[in-house]
Amino acid sequence: MGFNERERAFVEWYPRGYGVGFKVKRKLFEVQTEYQKLELYETEGFGKLLVLDGTVQLVERGEESYHEPLVHPVMLAHPNPRNVLIIGGGDGGTLREVLRHETVEKATMVEIDEKVIEVSKLYLDVAKGAFEDPRADVKVDDGVKYLKETDERFDVIIVDSTDPVGPAKLLFSEEFYRSAYEKLNGRGLYVTQAGSVYLFTNELLDAYRAMKKVFDKVYYFSFPVIGYASPWSFLVGVKGDVDFTKVKGERAGKLKLHYYDPERHETLFQMPRYVRELLERA
Amino acid sequence: MGFNERERAFVEWYPRGYGVGFKVKRKLFEVQTEYQKLELYETEGFGKLLVLDGTVQLVERGEESYHEPLVHPVMLAHPNPRNVLIIGGGDGGTLREVLRHETVEKATMVEIDEKVIEVSKLYLDVAKGAFEDPRADVKVDDGVKYLKETDERFDVIIVDSTDPVGPAKLLFSEEFYRSAYEKLNGRGLYVTQAGSVYLFTNELLDAYRAMKKVFDKVYYFSFPVIGYASPWSFLVGVKGDVDFTKVKGERAGKLKLHYYDPERHETLFQMPRYVRELLERA
Repeated sequence: MGFNERERAFVEWYPRGYGVGFKVKRKLFEVQTEYQKLELYETEGFGKLLVLDGTVQLVERGEESYHEPLVHPVMLAHPNPRNVLIIGGGDGGTLREVLRHETVEKATMVEIDEKVIEVSKLYLDVAKGAFEDPRADVKVDDGVKYLKETDERFDVIIVDSTDPVGPAKLLFSEEFYRSAYEKLNGRGLYVTQAGSVYLFTNELLDAYRAMKKVFDKVYYFSFPVIGYASPWSFLVGVKGDVDFTKVKGERAGKLKLHYYDPERHETLFQMPRYVRELLERA
Repeated sequence: MGFNERERAFVEWYPRGYGVGFKVKRKLFEVQTEYQKLELYETEGFGKLLVLDGTVQLVERGEESYHEPLVHPVMLAHPNPRNVLIIGGGDGGTLREVLRHETVEKATMVEIDEKVIEVSKLYLDVAKGAFEDPRADVKVDDGVKYLKETDERFDVIIVDSTDPVGPAKLLFSEEFYRSAYEKLNGRGLYVTQAGSVYLFTNELLDAYRAMKKVFDKVYYFSFPVIGYASPWSFLVGVKGDVDFTKVKGERAGKLKLHYYDPERHETLFQMPRYVRELLERA
């Protein structure tokens, strides 16, 4: 795993020895934060690369291929998302995409690792001012604890965490889903990234099973994310009466998206057949 | 590009320094054929890996993620595909999938490099007897020349070549599309792989433009292929009255596919929004 000095490349090695990586010009720095090892590279063709505990978080040129499908399908399926909670997402990309929606009155972001926010502000062209938006409320806190204790109710909750195989495992537990369900308004949507379809299939199935016990309805979808072992999976939990199979076209038109295509929302549900069948039987 | 002895990995480096690769147990051999450099590896988790001129062709465990979307969407959209031509596809995976269709009376495969067929027969668990099927007619010949000279007419023509950036460039030319159109029956479908959506976008656009000049209608679609920089693009050229947006469910049911999902045929048309817009303007 990691940086190959001689090859000048960073390759993330997934289970079964599957690798995705970037040629890099140089390593900018490496720091051990309170929670994880953070590395920053300058790639040859994709801007800066942020790595946490050896896993690719984003590249500056292409990160929207993750943040757009994470944020906009749920935001456009919800009839009127005003109060939004983001758990994780320290780089600010998710917050930035949420704030593009005019319906949003408040977006609370709860990131456990202050260092990620700091590195993003100082070095990454990702947040693009989102942290300074008057509607943004950025908290450094444990998302699990925050969600359990808050008195607020949200229209949309977005979990933008590291993969369900490491320290973020708690964010994929039934208990966590229950506290999310409780803190959603009567009509609410929950979305989480859920790992590589091909390489974390079991983790995807586990998360899907746990979400089905809690939410009124659960959807799975996939999107090709630059820098990840694509396709990447996402899970959506519904509370109350919201139809995730359709999005609001009039709001979508204003967004000028690059990756997620609201006009072809139905294509989000692309899933290799054997994975769809595993999910249906889960 | 290539094999890293120290890391025991093979990584294919795409434009802009994007890499996809596999951890390997060992390199089995390397041989310079009349047409290309052929390498064979034993990977850690995906069986054997076949590489031509430094580009990943397939891994034994996962190759269906390429061969299924290449073959079955056109075979199931065509009302009655009896005579099929495959250009390239020396490993035999495409031939194998074509022969699974009971409607097929004859499948001609024209591979320029005999060595690829030989290596597949001797070392790869891919063709699974397809070369010996009585309906198969395997020719070692130049596909461009063959298509120009043949008197046969085909219901489906499948181009299973290397990428549109190397020696296979001719297979992506307007001239070649014209001779394919001519050799299709009154109702016919042509399909070709067309490279990485994100990394060969210009090549995809060029091929799409050229195909639009020749075929009655052209479709693009994408699929996540194991071992390639996904999503991978495919182009379909239509001659006469065939609707590629729908497939024949009763024939699909018999196939028991693993990757391509005929019940969600519409999700094939997943395409990052900016690429869809480039294609629409092309």
